[in-house]
Amino acid sequence: MKLDKLVGDRFKERPTDCVIDSHALMIRGGYMKQVANGLFSHYTPLRRIMQKIECIIREEMDAIDGQEVKFPVVLPASLWQESGRYEKINHELMRLTDRNDTPLVLGMTHEEAAVHLVREYGQSYARYPFMNYQIQTKFRDEARPRGGLIRLREFSMKDAYSYHTSQECLDAYYDECHKAYERIFERVGLKGVISVESDSGMMGGKVSHEFMMLTPIGEDLLVICPCGYRANMEAAQNITRANPDTVVAPFTLTHTPSTKTNEVAAFLGTTPAKCCKALVYQKAACGSYIVVFMRGDLELQEKKLSNYIGSDVHPAVITAESGLCAGFLGPKGLPSGVTVLYDASLKGENNLVCGANKDDYHYTGLDVARDCGDVEYYDFANIVEGGICPDCGSEGLTLSRGIEVGNIFQLGTKYTESMGMTYTDKDGREQLPIMGCYGIGLDRLAASVCEAYHDDYGPIWPMAIAPWHVHICALKANDHQVAELANTLYQDLKEVGIEVIFDDRAVSPGFMFSDADLLGVPVRVVVSPKNCKEDVVEVTKRDKTLSEKIAVGDVLEFVKGLVNCN
Amino acid sequence: MKLDKLVGDRFKERPTDCVIDSHALMIRGGYMKQVANGLFSHYTPLRRIMQKIECIIREEMDAIDGQEVKFPVVLPASLWQESGRYEKINHELMRLTDRNDTPLVLGMTHEEAAVHLVREYGQSYARYPFMNYQIQTKFRDEARPRGGLIRLREFSMKDAYSYHTSQECLDAYYDECHKAYERIFERVGLKGVISVESDSGMMGGKVSHEFMMLTPIGEDLLVICPCGYRANMEAAQNITRANPDTVVAPFTLTHTPSTKTNEVAAFLGTTPAKCCKALVYQKAACGSYIVVFMRGDLELQEKKLSNYIGSDVHPAVITAESGLCAGFLGPKGLPSGVTVLYDASLKGENNLVCGANKDDYHYTGLDVARDCGDVEYYDFANIVEGGICPDCGSEGLTLSRGIEVGNIFQLGTKYTESMGMTYTDKDGREQLPIMGCYGIGLDRLAASVCEAYHDDYGPIWPMAIAPWHVHICALKANDHQVAELANTLYQDLKEVGIEVIFDDRAVSPGFMFSDADLLGVPVRVVVSPKNCKEDVVEVTKRDKTLSEKIAVGDVLEFVKGLVNCN
Repeated sequence: MKLDKLVGDRFKERPTDCVIDSHALMIRGGYMKQVANGLFSHYTPLRRIMQKIECIIREEMDAIDGQEVKFPVVLPASLWQESGRYEKINHELMRLTDRNDTPLVLGMTHEEAAVHLVREYGQSYARYPFMNYQIQTKFRDEARPRGGLIRLREFSMKDAYSYHTSQECLDAYYDECHKAYERIFERVGLKGVISVESDSGMMGGKVSHEFMMLTPIGEDLLVICPCGYRANMEAAQNITRANPDTVVAPFTLTHTPSTKTNEVAAFLGTTPAKCCKALVYQKAACGSYIVVFMRGDLELQEKKLSNYIGSDVHPAVITAESGLCAGFLGPKGLPSGVTVLYDASLKGENNLVCGANKDDYHYTGLDVARDCGDVEYYDFANIVEGGICPDCGSEGLTLSRGIEVGNIFQLGTKYTESMGMTYTDKDGREQLPIMGCYGIGLDRLAASVCEAYHDDYGPIWPMAIAPWHVHICALKANDHQVAELANTLYQDLKEVGIEVIFDDRAVSPGFMFSDADLLGVPVRVVVSPKNCKEDVVEVTKRDKTLSEKIAVGDVLEFVKGLVNCN
Repeated sequence: MKLDKLVGDRFKERPTDCVIDSHALMIRGGYMKQVANGLFSHYTPLRRIMQKIECIIREEMDAIDGQEVKFPVVLPASLWQESGRYEKINHELMRLTDRNDTPLVLGMTHEEAAVHLVREYGQSYARYPFMNYQIQTKFRDEARPRGGLIRLREFSMKDAYSYHTSQECLDAYYDECHKAYERIFERVGLKGVISVESDSGMMGGKVSHEFMMLTPIGEDLLVICPCGYRANMEAAQNITRANPDTVVAPFTLTHTPSTKTNEVAAFLGTTPAKCCKALVYQKAACGSYIVVFMRGDLELQEKKLSNYIGSDVHPAVITAESGLCAGFLGPKGLPSGVTVLYDASLKGENNLVCGANKDDYHYTGLDVARDCGDVEYYDFANIVEGGICPDCGSEGLTLSRGIEVGNIFQLGTKYTESMGMTYTDKDGREQLPIMGCYGIGLDRLAASVCEAYHDDYGPIWPMAIAPWHVHICALKANDHQVAELANTLYQDLKEVGIEVIFDDRAVSPGFMFSDADLLGVPVRVVVSPKNCKEDVVEVTKRDKTLSEKIAVGDVLEFVKGLVNCN
């Protein structure tokens, strides 16, 4: 198409509200416009990118026997009540009511709708396995949408749901889907996406992986070991080696005036690692208290705690009536009714400092096993850089940032059980199908590609998802020769199926090139009066790996070669 | 794909809740499943049909220089407040609030979002004209969703918005779009779609057309004249010829005990056409009264009245305090504060019966011009069969039923004015762009095709939008020869790009054929042991125009021919 007709403005100035480059460049390049917090309208270049991503995803899902379907965006709340998620999910789930006061929700994922669609179909074992997927608009009322297309409230997502009669079958399909995801990221041009073990959170189920593009601007922290172990912070098991002192001190009440637990190590001349700190949580503002004791140098991972509790938790509001002595909490002498949990980091330690549940007093010399009895330990702590790998046991864990560009979950029977989907097996027995689910956020994927491939001047789109294949710049198109050659090229390229954006505006070369940089089309063909005289055109690649003068007679074949080999 | 893997159930019994055939067949054929009132999930066959329709629409929109964009489903209420539609539209507009209590709406059309997207871009005249379109999910909280995909609450719609600097430019583009619509309906296989002049209702603007598929199950009534005039009931001007009596009676109070206006003609021995009836409306339940006087044999068209009033109206609730004497209302002696309107059908009439605004009394001999003074007449009445054509003046109007499958509107400056979108013209003056908008509901279009082309056994899909091109039935696929031939054919057809659904289940021919009928694939190839012996296959068309035995060696070319010539 002609660039002078392309709707959307391009401009030089980085918008002040853009923190990450992809956001800034996609605003500056006329790809999208914000409609409200976390809601964007897409201009044609982004629409074209998204359609190409859709097409690649569709091909790969079809290749693993996926059957495309479509679920409604608006769903009856009753479906979500069946699965129990209507009550379990908080503000992220958008609730609304229709003219008859029937409660509805906006789909943020579609497990319930997926089960609803096949509940009758899947009544015989002979029909398994099968997989349905859709590419559909989702809405999630995020507290903090950010980063342009990285964290939206409304987004386009491919979500897939597979159904199996055995764990082996699910495992095999899960692996197939893992490979399909690798091909998708490879094909859209995103190199270096790694998959990490993840926490399956509210989706239910046990095994799950996130596909992560490593980037410093990522909002997720990943744990990586040279041995190949990869997990996200929520899923990575924190392992500590106990380091007890050889000289064992007695459990002793100690006066620590105005010194709360976080200052007490310095006051007593020890280290945070020799302290037993207390972290207090609640399920709800008026709920009972959960106190987690943990080595003082570690951080609590809320997701691990909420998975253990089986519900969302948040840092507690400690009231005067609670009987809890904030700043001086310890395992001995807590009021009754408090849930007490011990992090595994305390196991085998001794000579620890802990609160005495009394203002201005701590205990020293704590040994949990000796002083608190036979308690159970769980993993509630965040991994630290240099920590111990749960797979190989070496102390070489590193933490990296990443953007989640896809995820796959083994759901097990969470939804089939709660929603009453069963099949009759070969022996006539009623069984619950096992499910997997597989998601990719398309908007975020587009932004991630931009984040991975751009320079200061604009995105550098991989050929497979570029809005156009070739960008023709006709410098001084009022020159008869230039206009004729550029137009001929434009028509010729279009005829062989190459997608061309054609700029013949009466603007300066600098202006033209900066627009071309912002559109990020992989191959650029510059037609100028000077080149015309030499009977050549200049062909460059947006990624700067090529800049050549090509004889006019050869240019069609040359450009075809560039477009097809990418 | 293999039919035995196709997710979805097909069955023989017509669901009792299906009134129209397309609804029943699309449920029976495993095309969709109802999730809630007016909300459906789509199985793969319907998804494939929808994608083909999308593709045809996209090509035709691109061909008239449309640029595809995408607006969010969820929009801030503030945008709709700018245009004034937030207050004006009632229950159909789905309202919701997010976690921060920001009011939002679900887009039912996207004029506001469209203007928002290009408000800055369109500041210079040089950029006009341009057109943006999207294919996106819409939500409209219909009071009575019905007919399967005919009247949904959530649906997929192509909506397009064009921007112009002159009425001539809009007129020309509007015509282009009209032609593009004709091509779209032609290409999806829907013959006999007519365009009718329509009322533009809440969209604002003046000129508009609806594209109607004529069918007895249509919910819209159309007015058609052999001269070529076509309009919907809301837009068609009702013309009556006055038929005054030559002997003029005086205006006389007459006792009509217990005889309300709808019974008074019989009581007084005259005809409804010689009565002046009163119809009472209100804008809101507590609003003031609007009384429309009209010839007794005609019906009021509410849309015409609400267009005149500039707001929705509904039949009034006449209270005891209103001063209105229900059943005896007439133009003389109405209480003050009532808006009185006269339908054009009263013009030139005499000797009419009308209410006397007094229980049990009417007047006879009414001549509005003589007795009520110099009043204005407007058109508020519905056209009747055999009525007078506003174009050619002959008394030959017929009424037909139709389904609206598309519409185009000239919006004028309604949205650019209310939302402050302006451009600077050649002379530096600020001007309002003129808009057009153009919609097609995709789900309804699919259902309309099914409605137009089906028999008792299933849909008969046109090749262009059929879920697959060819349906292979392998009768007794446990026969080695049948299996080999059918499989070879399946692979060969797929290789040349033909979409094949392949049924090799161990079921009876009757079962197989009834499933094939429900899937409605245009070309069927039957491989059977008997045919195999004769070295032929049986090729039939779903529309029963062909049933031939074709030599195995010729079948690929033959079928290719059938697929491509359709």
